[in-house]
Amino acid sequence: MAYIELPEGLPGIRGPMAFRPETAKPLNELAEVLLRDDNNTLSRGERELIATYVSYLNDCFFCQNAHGGIAQHYLECSMQFIDAVKKDFQSTPVSPKLKTLLSIAGSVQKGGKYVTTGQIEEAKKAGATDREIHDTVLIAAAFCMFNRYVDGLNTQAPADREFYVKRGKQRAEEGYLHFDLYK
Amino acid sequence: MAYIELPEGLPGIRGPMAFRPETAKPLNELAEVLLRDDNNTLSRGERELIATYVSYLNDCFFCQNAHGGIAQHYLECSMQFIDAVKKDFQSTPVSPKLKTLLSIAGSVQKGGKYVTTGQIEEAKKAGATDREIHDTVLIAAAFCMFNRYVDGLNTQAPADREFYVKRGKQRAEEGYLHFDLYK
Repeated sequence: MAYIELPEGLPGIRGPMAFRPETAKPLNELAEVLLRDDNNTLSRGERELIATYVSYLNDCFFCQNAHGGIAQHYLECSMQFIDAVKKDFQSTPVSPKLKTLLSIAGSVQKGGKYVTTGQIEEAKKAGATDREIHDTVLIAAAFCMFNRYVDGLNTQAPADREFYVKRGKQRAEEGYLHFDLYK
Repeated sequence: MAYIELPEGLPGIRGPMAFRPETAKPLNELAEVLLRDDNNTLSRGERELIATYVSYLNDCFFCQNAHGGIAQHYLECSMQFIDAVKKDFQSTPVSPKLKTLLSIAGSVQKGGKYVTTGQIEEAKKAGATDREIHDTVLIAAAFCMFNRYVDGLNTQAPADREFYVKRGKQRAEEGYLHFDLYK
């Protein structure tokens, strides 16, 4: 049971978002501009994969599956592929550039100061732009927030991972701004 | 030097905010509604103190001083008092309720799952409302983001702590929404 009285039947972050719409608004706006806005040289799938990986490192079941489901939709891949990236992205066929960005995201998850000059150099060598590095750091940092928000209030989430695959398609289509929390 | 090319002369989070105004917008809106909105039973000073404490735990020099300076302004206290709260809030004269909320914030800093039923019970016993617990968790989570954003990009910040005390008054007056990043 969640630590505070939340509207019933809403999985994960949706409960706290319905409880406090004033803070939900900028949180969803941040997700939209970071993860979904098309003015970005990182694809939606790549950005959702970074979010999924950080949520996995933070052991947040809801977020890693919700965003894993969205990434799966965009990348047209299997759940097995998403799981392989979470467990050992270096051995997957994601691009060399994305590998350097996932590495940076993994350091951000531990703490901002864990990112090294060497990691940044590797990313730039692989073709990452300043904007892509910026967005990677902010996506990773933002999921250190979302994950803590979801788990710090002890919200509940469906255990069936197929739930999130179905939802992923819906969220990809509707986006983060204009959706009904209750649907 | 910052890891990416940021507009010059802007301390801490201001550089990345000027670099990417599209993400700065929801970030500042989140800070405004969480930390400064008057529709809240936690005072602005109490909320800034939670932000300062979490930034201290994350070892983020810029954020702990920037928000410490704002807290100092609202609470009309000394820098020594802010430092005492950071180091051992239990031995300071902050209210019993705020102590239970700082304790929850400290757990959120480690990870969402570190928050315990016992901590929530203590907070409720001390008079904390669901909304206050919600906001504490989200403030703590948000600063796990802001701190990582600032340090993950290796931004620079003035070493003189008095800089932040002066800025604190200004930020308290102007708020997080309508200010000139370059002033």
